[in-house]
Amino acid sequence: MIDRRALRWNGWGFVHTGFELGRREPEVWRWVADALGRKTLPHRPAAPLERVELAEPALAEPDLQALRALVGAGHVKTDRYERAFHARGKSYLDLLAVRSGDLGQAPDAVVYPGTGEEVQALVSHCDREGIAVIPFGGGSSVVGGVNARRRDGQRGVVTLDTTRLGRVLAIDAESLTARVQAGIYGPELERTLQREGYTLGHYPQSFEFSTLGGWIAARGAGQQSYRYGKAEKWLVSAELATPRGPWRTESFPASAVGPNLNQFVAGSEGILGVITEATVKIHRVPAEKDYRGYFFKDFVAGAKAVRTILQEELPVAMLRLSDGPETHFLQSFSGAQHPPGAIERAAMQALAWRGYGEGRCLLLVGLEGDRETVLESGVRTRAVIERLGGVHLGRRAGERWYAKRFAMPYMRDPMLDRGIAVETLETSVRWSDLHNLYRGVHRAIHDALRDNPADADARAIVMCHLSHGYVDGASLYFTMIFPQKQGAEVEQWLAVKRAATDAIVAGGGTVSHHHGVGTDHAPWLAREKGEVGVALLAGLKDSLDPNHTCNPGKVLPG
Amino acid sequence: MIDRRALRWNGWGFVHTGFELGRREPEVWRWVADALGRKTLPHRPAAPLERVELAEPALAEPDLQALRALVGAGHVKTDRYERAFHARGKSYLDLLAVRSGDLGQAPDAVVYPGTGEEVQALVSHCDREGIAVIPFGGGSSVVGGVNARRRDGQRGVVTLDTTRLGRVLAIDAESLTARVQAGIYGPELERTLQREGYTLGHYPQSFEFSTLGGWIAARGAGQQSYRYGKAEKWLVSAELATPRGPWRTESFPASAVGPNLNQFVAGSEGILGVITEATVKIHRVPAEKDYRGYFFKDFVAGAKAVRTILQEELPVAMLRLSDGPETHFLQSFSGAQHPPGAIERAAMQALAWRGYGEGRCLLLVGLEGDRETVLESGVRTRAVIERLGGVHLGRRAGERWYAKRFAMPYMRDPMLDRGIAVETLETSVRWSDLHNLYRGVHRAIHDALRDNPADADARAIVMCHLSHGYVDGASLYFTMIFPQKQGAEVEQWLAVKRAATDAIVAGGGTVSHHHGVGTDHAPWLAREKGEVGVALLAGLKDSLDPNHTCNPGKVLPG
Repeated sequence: MIDRRALRWNGWGFVHTGFELGRREPEVWRWVADALGRKTLPHRPAAPLERVELAEPALAEPDLQALRALVGAGHVKTDRYERAFHARGKSYLDLLAVRSGDLGQAPDAVVYPGTGEEVQALVSHCDREGIAVIPFGGGSSVVGGVNARRRDGQRGVVTLDTTRLGRVLAIDAESLTARVQAGIYGPELERTLQREGYTLGHYPQSFEFSTLGGWIAARGAGQQSYRYGKAEKWLVSAELATPRGPWRTESFPASAVGPNLNQFVAGSEGILGVITEATVKIHRVPAEKDYRGYFFKDFVAGAKAVRTILQEELPVAMLRLSDGPETHFLQSFSGAQHPPGAIERAAMQALAWRGYGEGRCLLLVGLEGDRETVLESGVRTRAVIERLGGVHLGRRAGERWYAKRFAMPYMRDPMLDRGIAVETLETSVRWSDLHNLYRGVHRAIHDALRDNPADADARAIVMCHLSHGYVDGASLYFTMIFPQKQGAEVEQWLAVKRAATDAIVAGGGTVSHHHGVGTDHAPWLAREKGEVGVALLAGLKDSLDPNHTCNPGKVLPG
Repeated sequence: MIDRRALRWNGWGFVHTGFELGRREPEVWRWVADALGRKTLPHRPAAPLERVELAEPALAEPDLQALRALVGAGHVKTDRYERAFHARGKSYLDLLAVRSGDLGQAPDAVVYPGTGEEVQALVSHCDREGIAVIPFGGGSSVVGGVNARRRDGQRGVVTLDTTRLGRVLAIDAESLTARVQAGIYGPELERTLQREGYTLGHYPQSFEFSTLGGWIAARGAGQQSYRYGKAEKWLVSAELATPRGPWRTESFPASAVGPNLNQFVAGSEGILGVITEATVKIHRVPAEKDYRGYFFKDFVAGAKAVRTILQEELPVAMLRLSDGPETHFLQSFSGAQHPPGAIERAAMQALAWRGYGEGRCLLLVGLEGDRETVLESGVRTRAVIERLGGVHLGRRAGERWYAKRFAMPYMRDPMLDRGIAVETLETSVRWSDLHNLYRGVHRAIHDALRDNPADADARAIVMCHLSHGYVDGASLYFTMIFPQKQGAEVEQWLAVKRAATDAIVAGGGTVSHHHGVGTDHAPWLAREKGEVGVALLAGLKDSLDPNHTCNPGKVLPG
């Protein structure tokens, strides 16, 4: 587990690391300010922990004693740091709250059980006692999934931090599966597996600060999901502690004995119970990795290449296509840090003459596997791409991305320090609706920001990449950067969020491809699942957790 | 749709076709008799329709009038043929019943709705009126999934035949999906898709006489599931008529908005409602198919080759490994029909000298896709197989299997006519448990038949193949052929079924990989899903069908 004191309680990552801008940092911020229509950037630091307002704990000494009896006195925390750290996740709304110093609800106690049995005892105890239980792994939810809410009538909120459950228990080398405790962080999981020659291959952007249980609970996707699959694909079996008692799901390669209950666990976001352990599919560590870049003249051409590669079933680990604005942003941002030399400028100019200029789109192709497969797939993907108008940039573009693939989340804190909002939205949609949805969401975000600007000069950067592709469609991931409307940050965000999510739904997309529902997406659940679907999910919840002890208020509205 | 009068009401297939044994039919039966320890084979014909006992219909004229009002007078049937045809499915138990002339329960009426709206109207009507609704497509269930049961208190049973819903509605060529009505038979579906250059690629052994809706409802698997996936994999979205109203599931390439509800539909076996329509993933018709055979010295060596090919992620359409008894049976059966010539006998003798004799196992490798992929995969699969001790037999073995791949179900009727039981069982299990389970099930079947023999001389043929492999495990499919214990056929079957299924569960396997639960496997549901899992499934059922109108008594015990 990671010592909570080593982590930013109100931002991303380790206290001692940050987003490195190098010695040209002032030029980078000047470029950002220009792009957003700012003359200067304000100084808006986060409230320090000592100024944070925390409600008096609702649970008194007898309750705390009972918790201590279940997990040991040293594993029940009620200090300010632990309560603040576990109050919320890492969504933009969460950061607004924690940086403002007004946390709203925080857990009354944080417990760190050390075994699955202790988790079960805690869940059963809290269920009997009318206390809400919030499962918390890395706490990296960006949809309000770990917020310390309770239901009317519940006496208090206990956040159940799973990170003491951090071990790989067994590897089945013959079946290529591993049994792992749910609170393990990404790096520790991969270190342990790779020592034995295996990998799960699940590398979300939050990899360093998220846990196996969270990936499963929120149906997470790693950057190489093309090869390794989303959580619901690599999940073989799970163990949960539920108010109805311990639950171990089936673990067959496939079955026709009714619905596969693992598919209820993936996406359950803690509302059916706490995931304590999982069996997952693993792979041998790939002998070869090949990441490289290509330019397309526009997003439509690039998307067609991605679709063709997937529909020709060529084995790839990653295809990531940035749209024009994102390609421009990445190059300008990195250009402000490291101004391109004469040769690079000339090369770009030459590409521009050939039509790969304004609006060009960067496609990153990642291949992983045995040498023969990577070689063969490299030849075939390149042939498809060049046939469809892509131009090869070589491995450096791919390797540059690979080296910085977990860096983006670090960018948000320094942006917020300067009054700049960074928010992301993602969806997935079938190919035949993809471009319509893309345009609709772009328009919705721009319109909402135009109606809710920081001031008359404010400009927004709205960019998108296509990733996590499938034979029948792909995910679109939007990033927006805009000056905050001071004093009305929440309203501004709500306007954008509503407009963009409505546009996603109207365009035939899902409200989330891999972030989950939490509280933020719950209002759209019925539009996506339908009345019957919501009734089914509510029925599931009632079967296992009739008192709404587990993560109340998440996923299901109301 | 297929005219019901053209089909055997009490057996497999079209009335005018059968299992072709050719001019050496007497020799084949002599060989069968010898193998089962019979001197002669008895003559045990099925009861003709006119001798079948059918209960008086429980639904009277006002009920029939109401049904006619919903679907049109011509689409409500109450004649003997329709009631007998729809009384049961095609399990061994079903055949014992229909051949005996004692059908037990039969539907009081059979309705053929022509639209999804009519299906909804029927379901809602029957739900209000306390009448059970049994969805029926091809009726090929081998687990009691379509039997015309009703619950205590229900006034009658209506079987809802879906086969008028038999059209491909739309093809999305960009997303490679098709929207199809659920009552379409396999051949019509593939004909329509292939005319446009596409295929679903779902070819179960029942392909000719089963429907899309049934494949989804029972989580079916085609013979080429390695490439095209089981139903739960190719299902994109479904429409159902439920007692709670129409239900259309989400249709995204992937989503993190709670559990994917399509995974509740796949495996629902009609207990949540009637599937009326589905969107499914399709493929371009493969440019190349390559089916060939290999011998291994034993089952363990062959299974290792299958596992290695899958874990090296080589693209295959099919890997099908017969164990020693099945390889021997297939060769002897076909040898009785077409005695091998001198050259073939010499070749077999030469193989036997090299160790591929008694106990040798046939592996069929099927490759489908574009030319380049099939070529590359052909080279690599052969290299793996030969490295692991397989010997190449060429394409003829593969093509012979391919030509007869739907023939086996036709064998059962003439066997039953001669007092011989043919029964199958299947499971899936992780690789590390596979051989233990294999031995355990073999032993359990042999022991149960030894304790419940037809007579002292009776022998059984128990054989198995491994198919539908995955990275983490594979399916095992057992076929048993044995002389019936006359007058105690059901008890004999029950003893075998219980022993084999208990051995499957004890060995870590699922009670069914692709046949489903129906009534026959319901007693094992709790052992497989656990107490919490059964509670969840019961909760699902109660959410959509609190009166148990839809397919009562299936999947969930009691």
